[in-house]
Amino acid sequence: MKRITIENAIKKHGKKVKVSGFLENIRDGKSMAFLVVKDITGKIQVTIEKEKLPKICEQLPLLTPDSVVSVMGKILKSDFVKLNGVELLPSEIIIESVADALPINRKEIPASKNKQALERSSIDQRLDYRWIDLRTDENQLMFKVQTLLTNAMREFLTKENFIEIHSPKLIGAASEGGADVFSVDYFDGKAFLAQSPQFYKQMAMASGFERVFEIGPVFRAEKSYTNRHATEFTGFDIEMSYISSFRDVMELQQNQLAYALKKVKEKYGEEIGKLFGMEVVVPKVPFPVMTVKEVYEALEKELGLTFPVGDAAHGIPQRADLCAEAERATAELTQKLFNHEFLFVTDFDKEKRAFYHMRDDMGVPLGYDLLWKGCEITTGAQREHRYEQLKKQAEEKGIEKDVNFYLEFFRYGCPPHGGYGTGIDRLTMLLLGVPIKEVMYLFRGVNRLTP
Amino acid sequence: MKRITIENAIKKHGKKVKVSGFLENIRDGKSMAFLVVKDITGKIQVTIEKEKLPKICEQLPLLTPDSVVSVMGKILKSDFVKLNGVELLPSEIIIESVADALPINRKEIPASKNKQALERSSIDQRLDYRWIDLRTDENQLMFKVQTLLTNAMREFLTKENFIEIHSPKLIGAASEGGADVFSVDYFDGKAFLAQSPQFYKQMAMASGFERVFEIGPVFRAEKSYTNRHATEFTGFDIEMSYISSFRDVMELQQNQLAYALKKVKEKYGEEIGKLFGMEVVVPKVPFPVMTVKEVYEALEKELGLTFPVGDAAHGIPQRADLCAEAERATAELTQKLFNHEFLFVTDFDKEKRAFYHMRDDMGVPLGYDLLWKGCEITTGAQREHRYEQLKKQAEEKGIEKDVNFYLEFFRYGCPPHGGYGTGIDRLTMLLLGVPIKEVMYLFRGVNRLTP
Repeated sequence: MKRITIENAIKKHGKKVKVSGFLENIRDGKSMAFLVVKDITGKIQVTIEKEKLPKICEQLPLLTPDSVVSVMGKILKSDFVKLNGVELLPSEIIIESVADALPINRKEIPASKNKQALERSSIDQRLDYRWIDLRTDENQLMFKVQTLLTNAMREFLTKENFIEIHSPKLIGAASEGGADVFSVDYFDGKAFLAQSPQFYKQMAMASGFERVFEIGPVFRAEKSYTNRHATEFTGFDIEMSYISSFRDVMELQQNQLAYALKKVKEKYGEEIGKLFGMEVVVPKVPFPVMTVKEVYEALEKELGLTFPVGDAAHGIPQRADLCAEAERATAELTQKLFNHEFLFVTDFDKEKRAFYHMRDDMGVPLGYDLLWKGCEITTGAQREHRYEQLKKQAEEKGIEKDVNFYLEFFRYGCPPHGGYGTGIDRLTMLLLGVPIKEVMYLFRGVNRLTP
Repeated sequence: MKRITIENAIKKHGKKVKVSGFLENIRDGKSMAFLVVKDITGKIQVTIEKEKLPKICEQLPLLTPDSVVSVMGKILKSDFVKLNGVELLPSEIIIESVADALPINRKEIPASKNKQALERSSIDQRLDYRWIDLRTDENQLMFKVQTLLTNAMREFLTKENFIEIHSPKLIGAASEGGADVFSVDYFDGKAFLAQSPQFYKQMAMASGFERVFEIGPVFRAEKSYTNRHATEFTGFDIEMSYISSFRDVMELQQNQLAYALKKVKEKYGEEIGKLFGMEVVVPKVPFPVMTVKEVYEALEKELGLTFPVGDAAHGIPQRADLCAEAERATAELTQKLFNHEFLFVTDFDKEKRAFYHMRDDMGVPLGYDLLWKGCEITTGAQREHRYEQLKKQAEEKGIEKDVNFYLEFFRYGCPPHGGYGTGIDRLTMLLLGVPIKEVMYLFRGVNRLTP
């Protein structure tokens, strides 16, 4: 008999079915036993009249929480069953895999008559047994949502004839100046792990590909212990040619996000509300735009917030950049001023931007940050594609030798272009309100390389 | 004025347009000059009547092959123009980027009256300037095809509710036994680069995700100099739960490939024929299946080919595996017997298979290889999900300590499951008949880490 999903099985009133899944609950009473079987699509109650089913009764003592079973039986409508109003009366149970006693508590279990309350295991304990923690409804929904979000973002681009590239992660030179880069023993020499596909997606512009994207791992050797930083995460990078300004890039990104969030809301909006208590808001386009200066002024005027000034001694002009607190405060500001979750911020100071950002005649970088709910999710910009100017900007930062291979891309013809990068882990984190360690399939940090 | 693609521009007879692209050809005559501008969608001839356009005449000496220009002008139908029967009469040319003299010849240039023949640059020279080499029609088509192929393979899976995962590439233990693995300086310790997402996609099965896929880089520290091996390439991995045998996995894969190749043929079949001389064949399902033994017998019977026997001294039973020559010969065999490009081969010997493949009662691994045009593109199998049995099989190969973290995945409940892995570079290589070094966006080999 072919196994069907529980989502399908519960519709087949009166029919014989086979379902398979993990045992979420086992209640073994005197005359009756009840199992709750969970698969990726739902849950079903298996009701066992013990007197009638001696063979299954012999199996019951073997069953432990999270064991995997297949159950053949008949689907019955029942008003007494809370779970979908349906129960499965089994004729046969196959034990696919018996689980040892679980080493973590996924959730707090309140005290009952016979048992003390159980605390939820710490995040680090749960990460040690990540595969067990991923079995919760919330975590499984999280990866369904991320799959859809990523797929919709990609779909938006492939409809627009973007080409997908897979640029190498093993590179010969430390990419953006050498800091925070992992080094690899590469036969008799050294290689480095790419911190982003930045240089290689720009290379595609020099190749005439015009519009490309890449989804892949990026590596950051930052000795950071904050909740937001991982040493490896999944980047989503985009680059496009023949833009007339970085505002074309902003337009593409806002349309892409609006498209993807609409799809997410349609399919999972309700479930996300139920399991995460978050509302998925499909953003209106165009997104609001402010300069850094305007943000500080509005924070003061609208919210009464003032922030310490920049570090003039080190050549950083006042308010050249958004400090972390100001960034967070934009969440409230943007809601108040625009009833919006997103905010484009422009006119950062060049000291705070990468050397490859194009600048206007006043030296202001032609780029932006995109904030969502007060958290930066993107840096985007028009790139400097003129070889001499780009070389000069690399020299200003003293890294012209490190990036020489990259400068070469601009010597033999290259269209004007721009692009942005974002991270799908961070997007999922903000969408669902989950800490970054819990949003990644397997978090990697300074002290975390396993499982 | 907004730039439009050349594909669109050539339809706008009598209209004013702006197009942008690389200069593929420049002919500057006495009274007339002709440019061919190429973008990612096509080519157009720009016809310049010099007398009428003094400003453009001043620009002409600045133009070099592969410089990037934008051209505003009027589209005119013309029976005298070979290229789409259309020419662009310019009113203005903007020089976006001037190209230095190109350091490589992308193609052989035959001798002409005034010039000697030019040889095509070697593959290594062309890889040094990969971004220039990628500007050819063939290379750009290759990446459009790969984008569509990958996307169709992914689409097939997301329609079937597969979840996309991004497993870490930085891992704490050398994954499949320690050979051929790159090591990374990880703060004060060591990490390794994942050779495949094998263990982590199986982890998703233990997490109840049921059906997952991943597209991402895999790393192989093989000191190999053949044309088929890269130190980094892009894997496409799939894993699925609650299969009844590895034949369910084969079924999924054949349907996925048939689906994707149909899409490729529809959109690019004709162009592939023109530029690569290859026919895209949409394979009939089911694909033919033979055991290793049957393959050797048929090679002898049908093609008169015999092969040296296995190495009994080292415990490898006779014909436990397909040797490289036999593998290649299956291309002809499969055509002759089945009029098919694909062949599933089963019943390999366990010595030749990974320890995690499930085996039948006779010890025969429950898996397969898939060959396409005589080249192996996949190993697939049902996995051993029973902890005790899996541990025993790891011990047999003496790697139980290295894989201990992986064995843990099977202790707390795990569904029966199976899957396969393939490489999108290799698929593109076989589809278009292009060597692997030329099919990758940027090839990485023992001696190749740049650009």
